[in-house]
Amino acid sequence: MAGWYEPAMNGGLYGEPMDAYQELIDRFRESKLLESIGAIVGWDQHTYMPPKGAGHRAEQMGYLAKLGHEKLTNPHIGELLGTVKPAGEIETVNVREIRRVYDRAVKMPSKLVEEIARTVSQAQNIWAEARKKNDFPSFAPWLEKIVGLKRAEAKAVGYKESPYDALLDEYEPGATAAEITRVFAELRADLVPLVAAIASTGKKPRKDILTREYAVDRQHVFGQGAAAAIGFDFQAGRLDTTVHPFCSGIGPGDCRLTTRYHPRELNQGLWGILHEAGHGIYEQGLDPAHFGTPAGSFASLGIHESQSRLWENQVGRCRPFWEHFFPRLQQTFPATLDDVTLDDFIFSANNVEKSFIRVEADEATYNMHIILRFELEQALMTGDLKPTDVPAAWNEKFRKMLDLTPPSDAQGCLQDIHWSMGGLGYFPTYTLGNLYAAQFMQQARQDLGDIDADFRRGVFSRMKGWLNEKVHRPGQRHRAGELCRRVTGQPLSHKPLIAYLRGKYAPLYGI
Amino acid sequence: MAGWYEPAMNGGLYGEPMDAYQELIDRFRESKLLESIGAIVGWDQHTYMPPKGAGHRAEQMGYLAKLGHEKLTNPHIGELLGTVKPAGEIETVNVREIRRVYDRAVKMPSKLVEEIARTVSQAQNIWAEARKKNDFPSFAPWLEKIVGLKRAEAKAVGYKESPYDALLDEYEPGATAAEITRVFAELRADLVPLVAAIASTGKKPRKDILTREYAVDRQHVFGQGAAAAIGFDFQAGRLDTTVHPFCSGIGPGDCRLTTRYHPRELNQGLWGILHEAGHGIYEQGLDPAHFGTPAGSFASLGIHESQSRLWENQVGRCRPFWEHFFPRLQQTFPATLDDVTLDDFIFSANNVEKSFIRVEADEATYNMHIILRFELEQALMTGDLKPTDVPAAWNEKFRKMLDLTPPSDAQGCLQDIHWSMGGLGYFPTYTLGNLYAAQFMQQARQDLGDIDADFRRGVFSRMKGWLNEKVHRPGQRHRAGELCRRVTGQPLSHKPLIAYLRGKYAPLYGI
Repeated sequence: MAGWYEPAMNGGLYGEPMDAYQELIDRFRESKLLESIGAIVGWDQHTYMPPKGAGHRAEQMGYLAKLGHEKLTNPHIGELLGTVKPAGEIETVNVREIRRVYDRAVKMPSKLVEEIARTVSQAQNIWAEARKKNDFPSFAPWLEKIVGLKRAEAKAVGYKESPYDALLDEYEPGATAAEITRVFAELRADLVPLVAAIASTGKKPRKDILTREYAVDRQHVFGQGAAAAIGFDFQAGRLDTTVHPFCSGIGPGDCRLTTRYHPRELNQGLWGILHEAGHGIYEQGLDPAHFGTPAGSFASLGIHESQSRLWENQVGRCRPFWEHFFPRLQQTFPATLDDVTLDDFIFSANNVEKSFIRVEADEATYNMHIILRFELEQALMTGDLKPTDVPAAWNEKFRKMLDLTPPSDAQGCLQDIHWSMGGLGYFPTYTLGNLYAAQFMQQARQDLGDIDADFRRGVFSRMKGWLNEKVHRPGQRHRAGELCRRVTGQPLSHKPLIAYLRGKYAPLYGI
Repeated sequence: MAGWYEPAMNGGLYGEPMDAYQELIDRFRESKLLESIGAIVGWDQHTYMPPKGAGHRAEQMGYLAKLGHEKLTNPHIGELLGTVKPAGEIETVNVREIRRVYDRAVKMPSKLVEEIARTVSQAQNIWAEARKKNDFPSFAPWLEKIVGLKRAEAKAVGYKESPYDALLDEYEPGATAAEITRVFAELRADLVPLVAAIASTGKKPRKDILTREYAVDRQHVFGQGAAAAIGFDFQAGRLDTTVHPFCSGIGPGDCRLTTRYHPRELNQGLWGILHEAGHGIYEQGLDPAHFGTPAGSFASLGIHESQSRLWENQVGRCRPFWEHFFPRLQQTFPATLDDVTLDDFIFSANNVEKSFIRVEADEATYNMHIILRFELEQALMTGDLKPTDVPAAWNEKFRKMLDLTPPSDAQGCLQDIHWSMGGLGYFPTYTLGNLYAAQFMQQARQDLGDIDADFRRGVFSRMKGWLNEKVHRPGQRHRAGELCRRVTGQPLSHKPLIAYLRGKYAPLYGI
């Protein structure tokens, strides 16, 4: 290195912005290191923690969250953000996204943060009781309080058009209610007649196939094998059981999948695992060199969900996948599946039927459950819908969209935990995930040629490699919408999902 | 609360010392909370972490250690220690022990801390290679460096009589080399003839009994059952497998035991579990209200070890214990044990035989292994023994004490990891544990009457309750030596251990 470069390395005219950048990264990375420590502690809490450890664990988690928040909102970060002059793409991305996170964090008054934390901690118990007793009125005042707090949050962090945008920004940076409204409306317009057409055929798969006897230990072995086959690296991850399945990316070389098994249900132990493995393959595909910085972090919850849905549904329910795996599933459960044909099995795995519960819904009707929630959440945030009127509004929308009347609030507006956790703005990411998954998959099919031939042979490396390169490695270089445009050449659209669903259901239902 | 009390509550004449105390506790507790978070992360590392997670895990552990050290050595703690005026027993204990830990921490120059950390990190790999290749000379320069660093450490933290005292203080606060030398010399004087008398009988138990086939899953079930029976609370703890067994007390309601199993060895999966369960019962017996403060922490490593040895040996190898458990062990391994009598089994479990490896040694000869190491360590610290001369000194002492010549350094002075980790001063705590265990047990037998009758019925609650009250709940209220005096009315002595060993071996060997 020539001598005259030295001032730039050690400070001076060109040096200072670079030093400020490195200090910014170091400080931000500390908060992420604490987050990744919290991820282990949280994973342990949901897998192996003994019951009596719960109280102390809450203190540990609370302390880690407090420390992480202190690190993140340290005024030095604000000062560094004020002086840093990023050079290069990665530096620019990191500064942009650290600024977004920092600004949001410091805009939130700590009293509001505390009140939200205290409220949702109690509200979750109230909600659980209310759902059990089918007693919406007991939850209504809490929902009202939460909506009020979320409106205060939106006001504090600011927004351009809709207060809902401020909530979206936490989960889906850059997304707006207006844009989602447009895409969801188009999706709905095509989805409703498709579902109606399917229902009108009167065709139904055999319902017993997926609810026969599936020994849990064998489900575990088969599910682990399937996750490994699609590319989840078990040298850099695990699969354990829990009550509410999740995937936790702890850091480079360590990602934990969880699932639950039911001895008479194949769903959880199979598509549940493929779903979490999809999340896990995304985490494992992030650039470890950029761990703890935006360039090494997932783009958004919608993109994250697209990866789980892609492997669970686009791949994990398609015919070529099962041409490879069904004989192996039969070998694993010979007595259970010896009278079942491949066609029967695939039809069972792709049953479309309107139902009340979101988490049990099929790939098509699932999105109607989300659109309904999205519309109600927006109305709650604008004040057009009063929390006490939620059950009536829910049931009316449900009738319109799904032609069914929920028999109870427990099977209606009380079914999900999200609102009691203050998670308004979260639901849309599920359907965004379905949309991105279809749009990515359509592009992959164009780029990769006959990818079905791979699946038929149980080969998933080209598919995974394509996702690694196009979707995973970029991290947060692009916001979700821009990532979609770069990968597929098109803005987010409902068309690939509709085309995919039509293409799948046409032969199954003869429409 | 009357108005005139308020100044004392909010500061002022009487208020300030109390506030300083509370702030001191809060600050110290933070470092302990980080330690307890590190305990989960460390436990995970040795049980469930995927192999590729090792690099990131090292960074997480290093960061937690750094944060904890920052919290502990924060100058505010020094200021508070300067002003605090503790009132009451618990306050006095907490201030005394926090002062000890803080003083030691701030006396260590950070350069020395870093150099020790860097050196032992490398030295452990060198040692592992050297042991594998039986190549002491390759380890000698590292041992020399480590001894030099530990002498620097002793100088930095200070000592009254011997530099070894400064090292002891980290593991066994208040203990001195002089006192241990005295007790160990008395122990040795009685132990050598006892072991010689046993050897001269020529009697030996059947050697095959403990090395027959013991299916690992059944060992796990039996071991877990035995740990639960003696009082380890599995609602507040777990038992998992690992490579080098340990017990980790994470905090109130959460203590993790680990073990390893060999399908043809009963030792690990049975007495190994009882040993770790003994540690665990101590952790579970600490006062949760004082978590994170000295009053809620274990007294010393020697006292901790006394609890593992008490349950593993004093209880877990005694005849009444096996009168209860042996029929159950036979039921668990019927094909393996159907031709074995209770007498044969007990004799096997209490075989006394000189051998080369410390961790495989029996209850009696084990202590000679420790005395040998203690003497060598002292000579290393004073400079009387050069690290290069360790093999010759080891072998000479081994011949004198155990009448055997180690066939190699791998089975001699290279067998233990401790020195490569910088753990000089640690070994004596193992034999201190045996001594305290015997002395406590002798007292318990006096206090509790016919405790053997309990054991014969598989009842251990009175034994555990006694330990909870006398040994566990006091935490660090008393240093180990003082605790011993309070519990047994006597200072630490070799006599209870010798009496116990003689009492056990006399009928077995007919001496």
